[in-house]
Amino acid sequence: MEDTLEGLFFPESIALYGIPRGIKPGKVFLLGLLDQGFGGPIHLIHPSAREIDGYRTYQSLDQVPGPVDLVIVMSPRDTVFDALDQCARRHVKAVILYTSGFSELGDETGREAEARMRRIARDGGFRILGPNCMGVLSPDSRIAPFPGMPKTSGKLGFISQSGSLVNLFVNECSNKGLAFSHVVSIGNGVDVDMADLLEWMGRDDKTLIICSYCEGTRDSARLVRALRGTTAHKPVIMWKVGLTAAGSRAAASHTGAMTGKVDLWNSLFRQFHVLDVYDIEEMTDLAMAFYNLEPGGAARVVIISGPGGPAVSAADAVERSGLSMAVPGEESIRRLRALLPPTGTSLDNPIDVGLGASFDVGLYQGALEIILDDPGVDTVVILGGGVSTEMSADFVQGIIRAKAGTDKNVIAIAYPGFVQIDQKELLRPLYEHGIPVYPTPERAVRAYARMVRYHRYRSARG
Amino acid sequence: MEDTLEGLFFPESIALYGIPRGIKPGKVFLLGLLDQGFGGPIHLIHPSAREIDGYRTYQSLDQVPGPVDLVIVMSPRDTVFDALDQCARRHVKAVILYTSGFSELGDETGREAEARMRRIARDGGFRILGPNCMGVLSPDSRIAPFPGMPKTSGKLGFISQSGSLVNLFVNECSNKGLAFSHVVSIGNGVDVDMADLLEWMGRDDKTLIICSYCEGTRDSARLVRALRGTTAHKPVIMWKVGLTAAGSRAAASHTGAMTGKVDLWNSLFRQFHVLDVYDIEEMTDLAMAFYNLEPGGAARVVIISGPGGPAVSAADAVERSGLSMAVPGEESIRRLRALLPPTGTSLDNPIDVGLGASFDVGLYQGALEIILDDPGVDTVVILGGGVSTEMSADFVQGIIRAKAGTDKNVIAIAYPGFVQIDQKELLRPLYEHGIPVYPTPERAVRAYARMVRYHRYRSARG
Repeated sequence: MEDTLEGLFFPESIALYGIPRGIKPGKVFLLGLLDQGFGGPIHLIHPSAREIDGYRTYQSLDQVPGPVDLVIVMSPRDTVFDALDQCARRHVKAVILYTSGFSELGDETGREAEARMRRIARDGGFRILGPNCMGVLSPDSRIAPFPGMPKTSGKLGFISQSGSLVNLFVNECSNKGLAFSHVVSIGNGVDVDMADLLEWMGRDDKTLIICSYCEGTRDSARLVRALRGTTAHKPVIMWKVGLTAAGSRAAASHTGAMTGKVDLWNSLFRQFHVLDVYDIEEMTDLAMAFYNLEPGGAARVVIISGPGGPAVSAADAVERSGLSMAVPGEESIRRLRALLPPTGTSLDNPIDVGLGASFDVGLYQGALEIILDDPGVDTVVILGGGVSTEMSADFVQGIIRAKAGTDKNVIAIAYPGFVQIDQKELLRPLYEHGIPVYPTPERAVRAYARMVRYHRYRSARG
Repeated sequence: MEDTLEGLFFPESIALYGIPRGIKPGKVFLLGLLDQGFGGPIHLIHPSAREIDGYRTYQSLDQVPGPVDLVIVMSPRDTVFDALDQCARRHVKAVILYTSGFSELGDETGREAEARMRRIARDGGFRILGPNCMGVLSPDSRIAPFPGMPKTSGKLGFISQSGSLVNLFVNECSNKGLAFSHVVSIGNGVDVDMADLLEWMGRDDKTLIICSYCEGTRDSARLVRALRGTTAHKPVIMWKVGLTAAGSRAAASHTGAMTGKVDLWNSLFRQFHVLDVYDIEEMTDLAMAFYNLEPGGAARVVIISGPGGPAVSAADAVERSGLSMAVPGEESIRRLRALLPPTGTSLDNPIDVGLGASFDVGLYQGALEIILDDPGVDTVVILGGGVSTEMSADFVQGIIRAKAGTDKNVIAIAYPGFVQIDQKELLRPLYEHGIPVYPTPERAVRAYARMVRYHRYRSARG
């Protein structure tokens, strides 16, 4: 199958059409490419300037020497068709159209303009992403729509009908050690749409998990086919919005999207085992579970905690989620009894290492190692920290050391109010070692259980 | 009604029975009182030391000069009855029993020991909190079970069957600008229990909102009466755990609690309009709404956002929660049109101030002021930030300035991935001005809506 989206993800040369002077939103595209260190030529097009920020500018695409694979158009709305005509003449492969003010305005003019864009692209043999979109992040191709985006790639793909969420979700995931293969902001999706991108990421070897923020689609039959094909071999996590009257109106004026009926979407999700989420926290929690945790084994969980209360609630969460609380073996109990103080602790699962562990964080690592040795345990959720920043850093290093000797799942909890443990810097080593960190055991267990259920369902289907 | 709990909350003199030498968990009680600057005498009791940390110690309560209102007992388990006998002889008002190793061990000995404690307390005319508990935080009385706890008081009460959660929940709330009247760790609750404390806080003028972490009770009829009485005039937010088999076992070995059946608790919650929550995040979210937001008006919400995607999802959340999206008046629309750029923005609710607002955060404040002037609006949820720390600080100050001119609710969102806005220091001024901050609009709207529903229900009942 010919890959007509190649120009979006693997361009060898890029033109920025309508690059602004000074500090204006459109400048982020140049800053993004420079920040990534894009390897090919970057051509700037401006109607009158000869130079911007010290770079030569052309007045038209026609003047640019050599081939141009990708054009990012950020010029005013009334110049867009001139720009697209130039793109057609130069036989570009793809256009990212940042300019807004089309179907999201809700009038007939916008819809007609978008139909005209589609015709120009089809006749010119190129694809259009947008309008009203931020384009593409592909760290391996060194392209990004904002400066400061990650430069290493990973196995997560993200397709978004919100350009801002590209920035926000990628930032949030990067903070948590999750890296991306490709990230795409669709905008109004006049040509390249959610279905195209699901299918493309479904075929892309680098992408193993697909997240998406979806407002709606113009062609639901196409989207259904794309979901059927993609979900058959990769998990698709979808944050579908616009499913209320207020949300639907908001989506229409955001990207001109037709959001559809909640019942239809819900039956789609069920039919294709799409992992639907309702906010960015749930999407991140679930992405982190798919990224870092193994679905195998019997998903028998042990909770190790200093604080007793959160451990009791965690046990509730394990059982409610359909996972099982592991029963540590006699050998584990014997070793735990030798390790932990006799009072204020509990050797049963949840294992309460007691208040003293905040002063002697080695107790956490010791208990974790004992439990990870236990053949009846698949996953450990560990909640704790020290009474000082130093001790909390030791707590973190203890988890990393224990995890180094095992393929079992270890999930760390940076609990609210644990003053020393909820600092980004302190947690970074955990993320760097692929150990997911959740704020509460309830959220950890919910995400992990959902991932386990997904894989069980897939295995059952063969 | 005689207040037999007075000695726990308003002691004029305190003895620490079994204060440890060196850095051991029990030392936190002394550190807590010193940190608060407790005004009355603090007497230390140790079986052999003559001095600990430079303070004189007595070998028995009998030697202590003058009256002793409250004794905190942290001596080993086999010395507890001797300590309680001394308390009876000295006519103390209350005992906080930190020592653990009783009914939570699950044997008959522990239960018998607790029955004996009850008898000694009843015969001696004093109350016992615990055993296996951390005691009391009352900033106005300058008593605290840990160092580093808040020194200013507020309208939130907390009753907890987990001592660690006293520390964690208070820390988390303090970070969010919520202050406490009284906080109590119950532990095994042999004498003073959840019912006593609900009733006491129900009567306490200082406490206007009651949160609780509850594992179970020995006397459910008493608890039902206490809930009926207390919920009639104060909101009670309850995190009930141990409602699964695994959670129930965990609670039994944590505080020896009898957790009860999920159906019974759920019907209790419904009957008395108890606000049940399932984890610390939901409890904090709800406490923040009750603490900072006004339930009045028609709860007509406006979303103001820079990022478009989160705003669409927020509109869904408003409608799903049963609140209504406000319809800004013509005057507001006219003023917004004059303020905001013509493209990449939306004047409808949700109001999209556009990507440019990240570079010009005055647009956020301007839009917020316009909307707060609108008589058709009760509550504004504002989501945004600047591209630098400085601009994000300006964004925060803009919200504070706009809020200063109105009694309407303003809720700020520190969205995940907004790198500059999710820093504690940056958000502190918002909390200090009583402006609640949530990580997502979905969580904000859920908590606010629940608070509104609660008050509507209360008003309807008269």
